Amino acid sequence: MTIEDRFEEVRALLDADRPEAAAALLAQLRVQDVAALLMQLDDDEIAATFRRLSAGHWADVFSYLDDYHQQLLLSELSDDEKRHVLSGLVPDDLTALLEELPDDRVKGLLRLLSFRDVRRALKLLGYPEDSVGRLMTPDFVAVRLDQTIAEALTQIRAQIERYETVNVVFVLDDDDRLVNIIPLKRFILGRPEDPLSTLVSGSVVSIEVTADREDAVRRMQHYDLSVLPVVDADQHLLGIVTVDDVLDVAEEEATEDFHKLGSVGAVNLSLRDARPALLYRKRIGWLLVLVLVNVLSGAAIAMYENAIEALVVLVFFLPLVIASGGNAGAQSATLMVRALATGDVQMRDWLRLWGKELGVAVALGATMGAAVSIIGVWRGGPEVGLVVAIAMVLVVVVGSMMGMLMPFLLARFNVDPATASTPLITSIADIAGILIYFSVATALLDLPIGMAGAATLGQ
Amino acid sequence: MTIEDRFEEVRALLDADRPEAAAALLAQLRVQDVAALLMQLDDDEIAATFRRLSAGHWADVFSYLDDYHQQLLLSELSDDEKRHVLSGLVPDDLTALLEELPDDRVKGLLRLLSFRDVRRALKLLGYPEDSVGRLMTPDFVAVRLDQTIAEALTQIRAQIERYETVNVVFVLDDDDRLVNIIPLKRFILGRPEDPLSTLVSGSVVSIEVTADREDAVRRMQHYDLSVLPVVDADQHLLGIVTVDDVLDVAEEEATEDFHKLGSVGAVNLSLRDARPALLYRKRIGWLLVLVLVNVLSGAAIAMYENAIEALVVLVFFLPLVIASGGNAGAQSATLMVRALATGDVQMRDWLRLWGKELGVAVALGATMGAAVSIIGVWRGGPEVGLVVAIAMVLVVVVGSMMGMLMPFLLARFNVDPATASTPLITSIADIAGILIYFSVATALLDLPIGMAGAATLGQ
Repeated sequence: MTIEDRFEEVRALLDADRPEAAAALLAQLRVQDVAALLMQLDDDEIAATFRRLSAGHWADVFSYLDDYHQQLLLSELSDDEKRHVLSGLVPDDLTALLEELPDDRVKGLLRLLSFRDVRRALKLLGYPEDSVGRLMTPDFVAVRLDQTIAEALTQIRAQIERYETVNVVFVLDDDDRLVNIIPLKRFILGRPEDPLSTLVSGSVVSIEVTADREDAVRRMQHYDLSVLPVVDADQHLLGIVTVDDVLDVAEEEATEDFHKLGSVGAVNLSLRDARPALLYRKRIGWLLVLVLVNVLSGAAIAMYENAIEALVVLVFFLPLVIASGGNAGAQSATLMVRALATGDVQMRDWLRLWGKELGVAVALGATMGAAVSIIGVWRGGPEVGLVVAIAMVLVVVVGSMMGMLMPFLLARFNVDPATASTPLITSIADIAGILIYFSVATALLDLPIGMAGAATLGQ
Repeated sequence: MTIEDRFEEVRALLDADRPEAAAALLAQLRVQDVAALLMQLDDDEIAATFRRLSAGHWADVFSYLDDYHQQLLLSELSDDEKRHVLSGLVPDDLTALLEELPDDRVKGLLRLLSFRDVRRALKLLGYPEDSVGRLMTPDFVAVRLDQTIAEALTQIRAQIERYETVNVVFVLDDDDRLVNIIPLKRFILGRPEDPLSTLVSGSVVSIEVTADREDAVRRMQHYDLSVLPVVDADQHLLGIVTVDDVLDVAEEEATEDFHKLGSVGAVNLSLRDARPALLYRKRIGWLLVLVLVNVLSGAAIAMYENAIEALVVLVFFLPLVIASGGNAGAQSATLMVRALATGDVQMRDWLRLWGKELGVAVALGATMGAAVSIIGVWRGGPEVGLVVAIAMVLVVVVGSMMGMLMPFLLARFNVDPATASTPLITSIADIAGILIYFSVATALLDLPIGMAGAATLGQ
């Protein structure tokens, strides 16, 4: 039976007003699946269904709900129920919840928690947004080096039961500074009477608590780590980042880049659950900016009004030529933004890549120029064919160069390279394309330049 | 000292012709960093530097090189050196290497390997491309249930030393079918004399060997697993997928989607190292397809030649109106492609999302229409302002709808939704925009329709 079948069954039981039977079925599922199912229910069914779950699973299930459903549920639960959920959350999940809420609601929730939980939550929230400190959990198993394996195991057993998954033990010095990491595997292989130091080997990879969480992703990926210790500037161990956190971060960061590249304001939203007003806000800003850029396209065309009136056939090739520059630019911007994001390309590579891109762009432009010259000759005669072909080569080269250099320039000034979105590149390439196309046309075909008439743009 | 500083030092030593000193420095680095450094060297320095590494690290360092540098190195090493590298690779890294090579080179390499390694490699290569079988490693620690913890530990110790990281032990039945997974942590907590069955709890999440590797990513992410057992149709354990593999797959898949969305042919390339000819091939195909689509734009404009000649000011607003449709479409396509890829949105959600998108698009179009109507009135008079505003609303709504529905339609016919690239959406939106804009203009302004002159497109 697939998970989807079980979901159908639970829904059928809820529809048939048999909540106890539905709860019994839910009890057999993993918490992640229960959360997934809750998020598929109608908003007004969720709280009632959640209450029927075993209270021991509340916090676990809650931690797998997305922001929208967590807040929905919190707004419906009583203070006692909220306290039960919140006090059961692991620290990093609690931080993740609190950072999504407005200040006044955070205060309301903190009132429900124990002093110890509040202090931990405030400490984690004190780290900068998008820093490793917000991502880490302060739960880890630690021992000191000056003891036998058997003695260390006694300490480990006392700590280990509290935590769900533990694969490594951290070795600290007397000042709580991280000195090494021992995989549990080595305890299984070691002899109890040997000193713990016999299990220690190699150096430690760690990350500072204020580092960007993307750096944690890169470091764990680069070194194939399943757990990354988080330290302060003096190497004191503060917490750990686990690979499942990092997988989520990698996905969120990729989504953010996708949205930016599509000129949607970056926000960690679920398209499925986002309110239309939020989607509107995330999209209208860039669309209006692009309108302004496109007004310049109109102004550029207006500069060649006389040429258009003299040879209206020029207009028919206009979308073709300018779109091609935008398309080539979109390609190179996409390649560059992604390569910068994955670390494939570094800032220092720009000159080499620029040279390579120039060669590729000339080859692309030449191929496309040859292709469109045929249509140009056929529809407008040999002279128009030549104009279209030359303009195509130039437009593709300029578009590609822009698409390649803009992400670099943005990164240089500490702006996210993905801000060079494909619509932005396309719109700027349009302006460049119009100027190039009509310059080539007026020069080769000996057409008049400038504007006539009163009611025209750009005067 | 940062890694970059060490890299500089190694390079300085190589430039000073002191390869032994460089090798001594390299020996202090982690294999991942050695690989990263090798990839930054000039192509003709790599083999010589690689040979100076301790032979015991060759296979490890090699496994962290990208495809391009692996093949470069293989082409320079002797048969003996190649044998040493290949026989040291873990099975999944060997498979990953072989699947990148042409058939005749695979045969040449397989000749160098032991019968056992060849059989293992061929078995893994027998699984479909992009399947879990290609990703898994057949190395895992397994025990049977009918024994004490102490007996199991003896078996585990015998197997565990061979493998770098082991965090879980698999429990198999007499027929090698997977029945449970025990984290190593529980062995530390358990009493040796107790039966192994006391450590067993919960159910097992596994994946079939023929499943898509993206499903492995989703499943490990959904259930927060650090290791996922791979089974055949009868639940026999064949191998395991670890979370570091999955992190790499997630990145590769995201890169593939980025490239497709930017209309670059999907290929797992390093932009830094890719040859210009490869970049050309990956880009020219879609560019030419888009040229064909854009020719239709020209044909659409030609249909309104008379209207343009009667009121040339219409042309100035053309780029603005049609680009806005493309931009809105690019936004919704980006949102949809990413939401389908992450599983945020499912096929069954399409109707709900369609309704929501319609509402958002009307609001976006109205805002933009209001903004451009001002420019329209200013530059072309009230009538042109009205035409531009109405056309803008319609174009944005049509563009958004297209951008939202195309990824769905593609997915419905089992084509990757990311094929609905922003340049493709933009180009199609251009055609729709031209038709809408001139239809509104000719209807409201009572302009002539059709074409004049002989030398025009679309006759």
